[in-house]
Order: sequence, then C-alpha cells, then structure tokens
Amino acid sequence: MIVDAIETHAGGVTTPRGFRAAGVSAGIKASGAADLALIVSDVPAAAAAVFTTNKAQAAPVVVAQEHLGRSRQTARAVIVNSGCANACTGDEGLAVARGMAADAARLVGCPAEQVLVASTGVIGVSLPLDKVRRALPAAMAALSASHGADAARAIMTTDTFPKEAASTIHLGASSINIGGMAKGSGMIEPMMATMLAFLTTDAAVPAPMLDRALRETVNETFNAITVDGECSTNDCVILLANGASGVSVVESSYDLFVQGLKAVCLKLALGIVRGGEGATKLITVTVSGAASASDARRAAKAIANSPLVKTAIHGGDPNWGRLIAVAGRAGVDFDLARAAVTIGTTLLFKDGRPYDDASPQAAAYLKGTDIFVSVDLGAGRSSSTVWTCDLSADYVRINADYRS
Amino acid sequence: MIVDAIETHAGGVTTPRGFRAAGVSAGIKASGAADLALIVSDVPAAAAAVFTTNKAQAAPVVVAQEHLGRSRQTARAVIVNSGCANACTGDEGLAVARGMAADAARLVGCPAEQVLVASTGVIGVSLPLDKVRRALPAAMAALSASHGADAARAIMTTDTFPKEAASTIHLGASSINIGGMAKGSGMIEPMMATMLAFLTTDAAVPAPMLDRALRETVNETFNAITVDGECSTNDCVILLANGASGVSVVESSYDLFVQGLKAVCLKLALGIVRGGEGATKLITVTVSGAASASDARRAAKAIANSPLVKTAIHGGDPNWGRLIAVAGRAGVDFDLARAAVTIGTTLLFKDGRPYDDASPQAAAYLKGTDIFVSVDLGAGRSSSTVWTCDLSADYVRINADYRS
Repeated sequence: MIVDAIETHAGGVTTPRGFRAAGVSAGIKASGAADLALIVSDVPAAAAAVFTTNKAQAAPVVVAQEHLGRSRQTARAVIVNSGCANACTGDEGLAVARGMAADAARLVGCPAEQVLVASTGVIGVSLPLDKVRRALPAAMAALSASHGADAARAIMTTDTFPKEAASTIHLGASSINIGGMAKGSGMIEPMMATMLAFLTTDAAVPAPMLDRALRETVNETFNAITVDGECSTNDCVILLANGASGVSVVESSYDLFVQGLKAVCLKLALGIVRGGEGATKLITVTVSGAASASDARRAAKAIANSPLVKTAIHGGDPNWGRLIAVAGRAGVDFDLARAAVTIGTTLLFKDGRPYDDASPQAAAYLKGTDIFVSVDLGAGRSSSTVWTCDLSADYVRINADYRS
Repeated sequence: MIVDAIETHAGGVTTPRGFRAAGVSAGIKASGAADLALIVSDVPAAAAAVFTTNKAQAAPVVVAQEHLGRSRQTARAVIVNSGCANACTGDEGLAVARGMAADAARLVGCPAEQVLVASTGVIGVSLPLDKVRRALPAAMAALSASHGADAARAIMTTDTFPKEAASTIHLGASSINIGGMAKGSGMIEPMMATMLAFLTTDAAVPAPMLDRALRETVNETFNAITVDGECSTNDCVILLANGASGVSVVESSYDLFVQGLKAVCLKLALGIVRGGEGATKLITVTVSGAASASDARRAAKAIANSPLVKTAIHGGDPNWGRLIAVAGRAGVDFDLARAAVTIGTTLLFKDGRPYDDASPQAAAYLKGTDIFVSVDLGAGRSSSTVWTCDLSADYVRINADYRS
C-alpha cells in the first residue's frame, strides 16, 4: 500500500479532474489583454467561499453570496473579469453582475445561481455587460482542461506574473487533486477573507466540511499576508469540489485534505506578496513570546504593515529599533526588558541591549530577496507568522498613476 | 476696556515673558548641526506633559515622567537633544538621561527633578553624556529671550524647516502669551501623546488646570495628525506656565486660554504634517455622518493612513473609490447607499452612484498643495477632522537610507 503523501507541483484550477477553464479578451481592459476567465465543472460541485469584510462590498460579492445561498452551496461555474471591479456601482452594478452570471448559466446549461461571479480592477467604473456577453461564446469554446493558465492570466490587473498552484494527495491507491489560481497585487490585506482566489478539487467533500476546510486554510494563508494594509471591496476565495476523483474526504482524511489545500493556498498567497506592487523582497515576519495568539497576529500584522520597517528592509538597513517601536505601539502585551529582535539568524537586540557588532552581518543578509525577521515580545508563549513585501518607490509610482 | 481677543503671530517658546532658550551644537549629529536645546524659566513653572503610549518608552520619557512626579508638576528647565533617541538603551540610557538633567540642574541652580529631558533621533544608539556635558556651559551662556528660534532648529532631525508658533490672549488690559516649538517628521502618528513639542506660557495656571488644558488641546491637534501611522518611542509634549505675565487663568478665562493654546498647537501640528517626510501636500480629512465621535476619528485616521489614498492624492488622481474602500474597511458603521465623497468642493460619489463628470474639476483641484477631502459615512451625525500628507517616492528614499 502506498503511504499517504502530499505532493505539490505545477498546475492550476484544471489540474483536478472534471474542471475546464478558459481566459479570453472581452475588451474591458483598454490594452486588449485577456480580461475574462471562466471555470466550469462537468458536474455541479460543492462550493465554499469567503468574502471581503469591507462594508463597501462590490456588486459581484453581493451576487456571489446570493447565489451560494440559493444554490445551497453548489456551483457549476465561476465567471471572473479583470479591468473593472464593478464596485460602488449601485443597482446598475448589481444588474450587470446578475446578467454576467445569467448569460454564463445559459451557455453552461445550469441555473443562474450555480454560477458564481467575481470582478477586479478600478472601483466606481461601470462594467459593460455587452462586452462580457459578446465574449462569452468564445470563452465557452475555449474551455479546456489544459487552459487553466489562460484563466490565471485573464484575472491579472497590476500583477506582474500569474499565480497558480496545485497539489496531489495520495490516499492509499487513490489520489485527489487540488488546484488554484489567484491575483494580487495592491489593496492587499485580506480581513477574514482575501483577494481573488479560485480553488478546485476533484475530491468529494460535503459542503459544511468544505466550508470548514476553507476557513481554516484561509486564516493561515491568505489572511496572513499583507502588501499595503488595504482590504479591498472585492476580495473573495471560492473553492469548488466536484468529486470527479471518486474519492470522498471523510473525518479521518480531513487533516490531509486541509494540508493539501494549505499547500496550494500558501503558494498562491506568497505569490501575491512576491508580486506585490513595487515589491523586491518577500518578508516573513514571525512574532513569538506573545501573551495570546491574537496578540501575536496583531503585532505581526503591525510590523508587516509598518512603512518604516518596510522601507528599512527595502534599503537593506537592519534597523531593529523600528521593529521594537512597532511592537511597542501595536496594542499588545510587550516587555522591553525581555524582548528580542532577530534578522535572518542574527540576533540584534535582547535583554534590553543592542548587539550592534552583528549589524554588518544582518545588512549583508538583507541584500537577499527572501527575508526572515522575528520579534520576541517577551510577554508569553504564543506565536504567529505573516508575510509581507518591502515598500519601494515603485509602489508609490504605480499607485500615483494607476488610473492615468 | 479692550475686548478679549486672541492673536496668533510669529514667535516661539521665548515669546512668553520669563523664558529664555538656546540651541547649540554638542557634536551628537555627525554633521555638526545644532543638536542641543535648552529652555529655562526664570522661576519654577507649573508643568504639564503628555507622553507616548508606545510600550517601548525611551529613557528620557521615563525620566521626564519621574521628574514630574517628584517635582509635583513644576519645572525650571527642559533639555532636549536631537541626533539620538536614547531609546532601547537599557539602564545605561536611563543613567544618561538622568545625568543630562542633573548637569543642567547644576548650572541652572535648581533640583534635578525640576529639569525635564527629551531626545529624538535614531533608536538603539547610546547617547554620549560627555558631549552633552561639554556643550551645556555654551548653551547656558547662549540663553536668551531672543534665541527661541535657535532652540527650534536644534531639535530638528529629518525636519525640513523649524516649527514655531505663538499666540497672545488679550484679557481686558492684561495679556498672556503662549509659545511653542515642535519637531516631526517621520514615525508620526501620536497616540494619546505626540511628537516632541515644547510649549511655554507666562500665564499663571494651577497644575491640574494646566494638565486639563493640555490634554484637551493635544486631542484636537497633535493627536489628530499622522504622517505614516507610526507612533514613536519618544513622543512628548511639555507645557510650562511661569506666571510672569501676572495674569492667572481661572475657570472663567479657561476656554480663552485653551483657544490660544490650540491656535499654537494646531500651527505646530500642521507644520509637522507639511514637513512630513517626502510630503508635497497637506491633506485635511473630514469624516462626517458617523455613528459616534470615535467612529468618525477612526475612519478619518484610516483614510489619512491609507497608502492608496495618499499615493492617489500625490499623483493628482481623484480616485474616490479608494476613499470609499477605506471607509468600508475601517471597522465603523458605514452605509454605502447613503455615503458620499467630496474632494475640495466637488461631489464625486453620493446615493450609491459616481459623478464622474466632475472628475476633471477634482483633478485640477488636486494640483494644489492644500487638499480637503471629506467622506460622509451615511451612518449618523458625528464628525472628525485629521490632517495628513501625501505619500511620495521621497518618503521611501528617506526611510530606506535613514541610517546609511
């Protein structure tokens, strides 16, 4: 018998059996680049999703939630456009989001509520339904089990590369696959939800278990990243499970399934950070010695969002004082006399005193692109890890010019 | 009889009678620029102060609080150095802060606890007490009622200009003066405290009333500004009242005194924002329609700290969608259908729909350097105003290179 194992590999939303995808140009982006993605399951799939907690929810977020409720958590397809967020667009925006889903449903041959919809791009601009409608037949025609990468490219906005991931879980002689795609890359600090990410699996998973697995996974992956501390109006993660592998996930295999799901989501989440606007470094921030898990997460997020920390790392400056200053203002238990700061493997501050002799070693380490920093709050035993990127002048340039 | 009136004018900490100041070079800054300021009152003054809420309080913050307690809220002098924050320096740092105060007290001729101490600059670097000690006699010799501007220059770090302000309150035939100086310009989001600011008045004010006036004023001035959302380890505001005008502030004149104090503090606070690292625009953010005053302040601060809002305004882009997105994620009551966004006097979003025809008008307005933006949350009747600056590539450059 083959030992249970998880293998991560290249692949995306069409790696799991019974899923096809396409990415085409609908002319929503002025550049003519691909801007419409479609994912279709051969059969109705169990569906789980988490959405932005932003109170200015975009029309597609509202409609996707409606559809999930009405379909009792099943879906045949997901339609996604980039180039326009369809957010802050009032009743007209809701009509467009519903229209996109209805049009796709007609072509797929399923009830409208079995189509989930998502949008990403500029806020406050009307989404031209006619362009989506005209492009849909081409998207349908292009649907293929080998076109997952096209779909991943079609959901990009300021992303500099597409984000895809897949894993295979071997369960005895059987196997199930999990695949996913995501997009970043600004307005990123998911709050109990995340950016656009679409996940598929050919496992059979009951909807409540699928929901539990997704929430558990998102908390440690997409919800543990930040680019700029901004939570968007359109964030969503959708996970479809169509059972095409013939393997059912049950309580005894649940943990393995979650591990496989986390592997896919972490790769996508780190891809979002690596591709963050203007990013040149991926920064892993670990906070330990916290009085509680929520303190640990809060301090780690405060450090990961600190412009002074992010600019120091961008400049290759092992300025540990900025890490201490953020920990001190993060609103968590903190004991300066017991706190410690490590950059890479170099200890720079402990027991209330600096180790500045080690500064050149830390500076040399900061020339790399994968940076680990850790802060011990000296207040307890809990820890948390989050991921962020450095803050560069390019972030400012990209966002000062976004609409011009 | 002369009508009670408040007049704001040029001046600083030596505008009130009975105060002398000096600013000299102690060699703490490698550049040789002025880095040691001294303010001395001719007689013991009532003293009030607010300090950073950062849990990594710097040594001078700890010592100033000790001295205020021991002196029962009186002080003769304030000694301030720039170029080194004396923060995260352990017991040695505390000894240096106490030593500075003791040396100054010896020369001034007062108990050590009547000298308050403050430092600003790089965190985690030892402050050389011998340099302060050697420079103190020159500072004493330079003390003058006309050297307030020298003191204001000696407390600068990355500040691009000194910040001074003064007001005169006419009370019948008498008058009292209030003066102040402050420094910015990064690591600025005071939390119930503020950056370094030193205020003097020749009014006689009982310590409890002085304390009340300072807290009320700080809440609406220094605590309503942000440059980068960072709360420093060294923030403090100190207010000395020496009574040299012969006029006592009593309950009936308290409001007038607070008005005069606010005028001085607001000018200093706005100076800090205008001089924020990399700043090219002063942005006034008003949030109205909030369910509570704390919601209003919270949403206004979230907008003022949003990198996407700050970069959009830097780039002259009237991207109201980013303002709505921040309001929606700020954790406050918010009703998208009743919300509104105005830039300058141009309404860009209301009743759930954009007014994009007005976009060119708003874009033209954003070419200016004094920018007003307002967001109505559509959720109540409370409002709050905070001040911030835009986020430029220069902020990144300044902070990526700060120590190199």
